[in-house]
Amino acid sequence: MNTQHLFQQIQKKQSFLCVGLDTDLEKIPEYLLDNDDPIYAFNKSIIDATAPYCVAYKPNIAFYEAAGQKGWIAFEKTVAYIKQRYPDQFIIADAKRCDIGNTAEMYARFYFDAIKVDAVTVSPYMGEDSVKPFFLYPQNHVILLALTSNKGAHDFQLTEDRNGERLFEKVLRISQTWASNEQMMYVVGATQGRLFEDVRKIVPHHFLLVPGIGAQGGSLEEVCKYGMNNRCGLLVNSSRAILYADSTEDFANAACEEAKKLQQQMSIMLAKYLDK
Amino acid sequence: MNTQHLFQQIQKKQSFLCVGLDTDLEKIPEYLLDNDDPIYAFNKSIIDATAPYCVAYKPNIAFYEAAGQKGWIAFEKTVAYIKQRYPDQFIIADAKRCDIGNTAEMYARFYFDAIKVDAVTVSPYMGEDSVKPFFLYPQNHVILLALTSNKGAHDFQLTEDRNGERLFEKVLRISQTWASNEQMMYVVGATQGRLFEDVRKIVPHHFLLVPGIGAQGGSLEEVCKYGMNNRCGLLVNSSRAILYADSTEDFANAACEEAKKLQQQMSIMLAKYLDK
Repeated sequence: MNTQHLFQQIQKKQSFLCVGLDTDLEKIPEYLLDNDDPIYAFNKSIIDATAPYCVAYKPNIAFYEAAGQKGWIAFEKTVAYIKQRYPDQFIIADAKRCDIGNTAEMYARFYFDAIKVDAVTVSPYMGEDSVKPFFLYPQNHVILLALTSNKGAHDFQLTEDRNGERLFEKVLRISQTWASNEQMMYVVGATQGRLFEDVRKIVPHHFLLVPGIGAQGGSLEEVCKYGMNNRCGLLVNSSRAILYADSTEDFANAACEEAKKLQQQMSIMLAKYLDK
Repeated sequence: MNTQHLFQQIQKKQSFLCVGLDTDLEKIPEYLLDNDDPIYAFNKSIIDATAPYCVAYKPNIAFYEAAGQKGWIAFEKTVAYIKQRYPDQFIIADAKRCDIGNTAEMYARFYFDAIKVDAVTVSPYMGEDSVKPFFLYPQNHVILLALTSNKGAHDFQLTEDRNGERLFEKVLRISQTWASNEQMMYVVGATQGRLFEDVRKIVPHHFLLVPGIGAQGGSLEEVCKYGMNNRCGLLVNSSRAILYADSTEDFANAACEEAKKLQQQMSIMLAKYLDK
């Protein structure tokens, strides 16, 4: 899916919500564990409950990898289900992969050619040749880690070089030359507040994937005030707050309510900041 | 396996060779493709052929992930085979994972608790809380990317901060405080030559995993001259040069010869630099 189509969906649904499918067998309602494929059963219910209120889904690969072969089957089935049932949803494999060229190619081939997600998150630490193989797929997108939402973001990402440029700014500046605005997106954590202003000085036009509202404490209003551009340019993710809103048989309804609540807040944000 | 045991193996075998199991279905001898599990069949032959000459195996996860469920089965069987048949081999999952705390925990649980490898490679970009969950397993090791072997290493890893400290040096300095010398190791590419001197100023006692000799062009002598410490402190990896030394039914013998050649060079290096 291209970003034009993605923006159309955002306008139509008045939402830029991405639902993070971080499905943990230890947290899903217990009765689902009797199911043949509890991860998939849970995801399917969550997807059906939230699809009207979001424009993207983001399975975090760690949760599927940790479940072994069954996890990978559930991941593949989940992506196939979204593509078949909700073809207008943008699908992100949150893999944060990072490896030398010939190896990065293997990851790109798997996610884009075999599984057919729209985008993959990638870590920039190893530089250009670790990211470029993903651009061999012109319809697909790399979402590069720039400024993450966690405490450890401060350890290296904010380090200033001799010219006062911080590492995340250098990542944004240099990586732009590797691909078009269309193929490249960035991860910027909602917990970074006003730093969105600095991000937008360097990448005014790119889409940003924004984790960190909800459980991690970021503010939606701040993200929109400093981060929204004239095509919205934001995909704000919520995982735990939606998935585990309720631990009973009513979990899908509770997830639906959470997603709807976020969509309503996002609709207000779009009216307030989209064409300012 | 602890580093004491690893050093004993290095002394006994006069080798610090790590064989990289980057098994690519497009590169293994064609006749193996008739096999039920060609990746595992290939790995088994490579392992049996090289075990006398190496002290470690390093499956790069990208190659298994790219093969889908069959790849994961082959990965698990490969690790189980090494553990059962060659329990003195150190096993590294070259995953280069990187995620926030609760997610990094999922990766740690999978690799250390379910698969039971000795070490996992991890990317430092997201900082302390993305690495620490791996240290919950006191018998296991994190191998943190510091200065990688690829061209893209120059994009960010060599950036100097205001005090002239380069990013890879900051990663080495700060990350040392996260765990003991025993639990932490670092990736330093063989192509970095004299920079090993700078690495050793900061981490004199840690083990370094060194990719980049062979196909990537790094020099074993330079790595040893500037990188070896009094417990050797090096695991030098070779993947393609060993795995694909020959593409016929004779591939295992050719792999054996390659590994033996490297072991002989390493034996000379140990005599020359170990107790200097």
